Amino acid sequence: MSRPVILTGDRTTGPLHIGHYAGSLKNRLALQDSHRQFLLLADTQALTDNADDIGKVRRNVLEVAFDYLAVGIDPAKTTICLQSHLPALAELSMLYLNFVTVARLERNPTIKDEIRARGFGRDIPAGFLCYPAAQAADITAFKATVVPVGEDQAPLIEQCNEIVRRINASAGREVLPEAQALIPEAGRLPGIDGRAKMSKSGGNAIALSAGPDEIRAAVRAMFTDPDHLRIEDPGRIEGNVVFTYLDAFDPDREEVARLKDHYRRGGLGDSVVKRRLEEILQELLAPIRTRRADYAADPGEVLRIVAEGTGAARDLTDATKQEVMEALGLFRL
Amino acid sequence: MSRPVILTGDRTTGPLHIGHYAGSLKNRLALQDSHRQFLLLADTQALTDNADDIGKVRRNVLEVAFDYLAVGIDPAKTTICLQSHLPALAELSMLYLNFVTVARLERNPTIKDEIRARGFGRDIPAGFLCYPAAQAADITAFKATVVPVGEDQAPLIEQCNEIVRRINASAGREVLPEAQALIPEAGRLPGIDGRAKMSKSGGNAIALSAGPDEIRAAVRAMFTDPDHLRIEDPGRIEGNVVFTYLDAFDPDREEVARLKDHYRRGGLGDSVVKRRLEEILQELLAPIRTRRADYAADPGEVLRIVAEGTGAARDLTDATKQEVMEALGLFRL
Repeated sequence: MSRPVILTGDRTTGPLHIGHYAGSLKNRLALQDSHRQFLLLADTQALTDNADDIGKVRRNVLEVAFDYLAVGIDPAKTTICLQSHLPALAELSMLYLNFVTVARLERNPTIKDEIRARGFGRDIPAGFLCYPAAQAADITAFKATVVPVGEDQAPLIEQCNEIVRRINASAGREVLPEAQALIPEAGRLPGIDGRAKMSKSGGNAIALSAGPDEIRAAVRAMFTDPDHLRIEDPGRIEGNVVFTYLDAFDPDREEVARLKDHYRRGGLGDSVVKRRLEEILQELLAPIRTRRADYAADPGEVLRIVAEGTGAARDLTDATKQEVMEALGLFRL
Repeated sequence: MSRPVILTGDRTTGPLHIGHYAGSLKNRLALQDSHRQFLLLADTQALTDNADDIGKVRRNVLEVAFDYLAVGIDPAKTTICLQSHLPALAELSMLYLNFVTVARLERNPTIKDEIRARGFGRDIPAGFLCYPAAQAADITAFKATVVPVGEDQAPLIEQCNEIVRRINASAGREVLPEAQALIPEAGRLPGIDGRAKMSKSGGNAIALSAGPDEIRAAVRAMFTDPDHLRIEDPGRIEGNVVFTYLDAFDPDREEVARLKDHYRRGGLGDSVVKRRLEEILQELLAPIRTRRADYAADPGEVLRIVAEGTGAARDLTDATKQEVMEALGLFRL
């Protein structure tokens, strides 16, 4: 049996941070042994809401690739490829747009939420409205059957499968497999300030490249329980970012449970818990930072890895595109 | 000075008819000497409202190519190419969708009219809504500056130029030229039944491949002046299809003017005018039919012409795509 194919990736809009590590990168390290894994450096998808800052999208292609390699993504096991250099993705996107209605795209809960969050209103770029079809193209071009997504992105996989069923029905046979959403157990990590979304632009992230001082400062500034004023007072765990991070990064579950108990009862100061978290993050990030610096010092080698992965992905996605066009009965030259 | 580039073509949804001849093919014969002309066999555009009948789109690729060659399109002067085999068109389409809003696409008068005419309502395929961006990709990929369109299609060229200006502004230099609509003097030829649109599916067309009996029957059935009951009665020219066709096809303008006068005064029977029109159409179509049959008997040769044209167009459009992506500042591998 060949390994199941997994497609995932990141928009190249900024270097990755520990939220990415906890939410996806860590899983990918495990999945690259059990799955045929493709990581998409999604620069063209990033354009759907960054057409006014293409420089940012370009600059972060290598940054994200450095992050991948630094955390231990192994190019011998995982194919890292650049979306803008895979023409079949655009060709399949344009094809799929004929198999989905505007009304259906507008009903997509993920799109609805994101349109609201970005304040697009009617001035939504057409590319943004169409991105579920583009994402279906990404997934199916690799014939991925497993797609790790956040809970809020699950409707996109349903949308993809609707398109797959329409294509298969039109072709009269199963050209494309349906995909399954793989929703990580760990929810999304909040920012150090307690806001739901950790992001570089929000100034509340710890980058994978963060230096020791940055890490220390970030942990010190971290949001805990604002009502926990004296050490002897009982403290709250819920919404306390330090404990949320310990849950995500501390391998010693029992010790974390014990600390939570103590904190709740009172008598455990924030500084003690923060010291523990800082130690864990320093230990986690030190080797990543070192490897990242090594790769950043040799961008030619990283370029070679991305070019090689993109070449392999190009062959694969071109073949799928060809197969879909023939199965649908388009003219073959 | 290099010759100006002209891009035009036809959706491959049916063989061409004399309406196409009068409205576009005749002009293209002249333009292929003065311009660098590209003819697009627009099979992927045809999918935007024919995804439920891809067989029709496929079968008509060669039919349209036969028609082109039969009327005298010369592959040494005009490049005939197949849209679905030009990946750069899809890549540029996806790129341009980020430079146009959904609201702008919906405001496009051509799209508005066609949505109404096709009864799509909210169930409009997304590909159909997006086709102005796809058309902009077609035009700009060839760097065409002249685009022959019907009057009703002129807003599409304006839409294309808006995208061009946004791309050029984003790139900080003129990567792409703006295009001009070339609106033919002759309006659209009505069907033989007097309805505004001649179409094969409407059963009111004379195909370029029509045989002598078909031509005769079509002219006999042609709509004239329903109130012109007796030969001696005055007749009406306006809306009289036979005279509209004489205006389009009879090279002897003076004789047509004389016949119109006579018909208006009374004393000229429909059958006389129809006989003249039939003769002209038989003479026009006989050599086209013969050449068409020759090409249809040698589809391998036509395939070779289309493949060669598509190969040349692929090089050209890939180069433009590359240039646009670099000018916009996307990552270059």
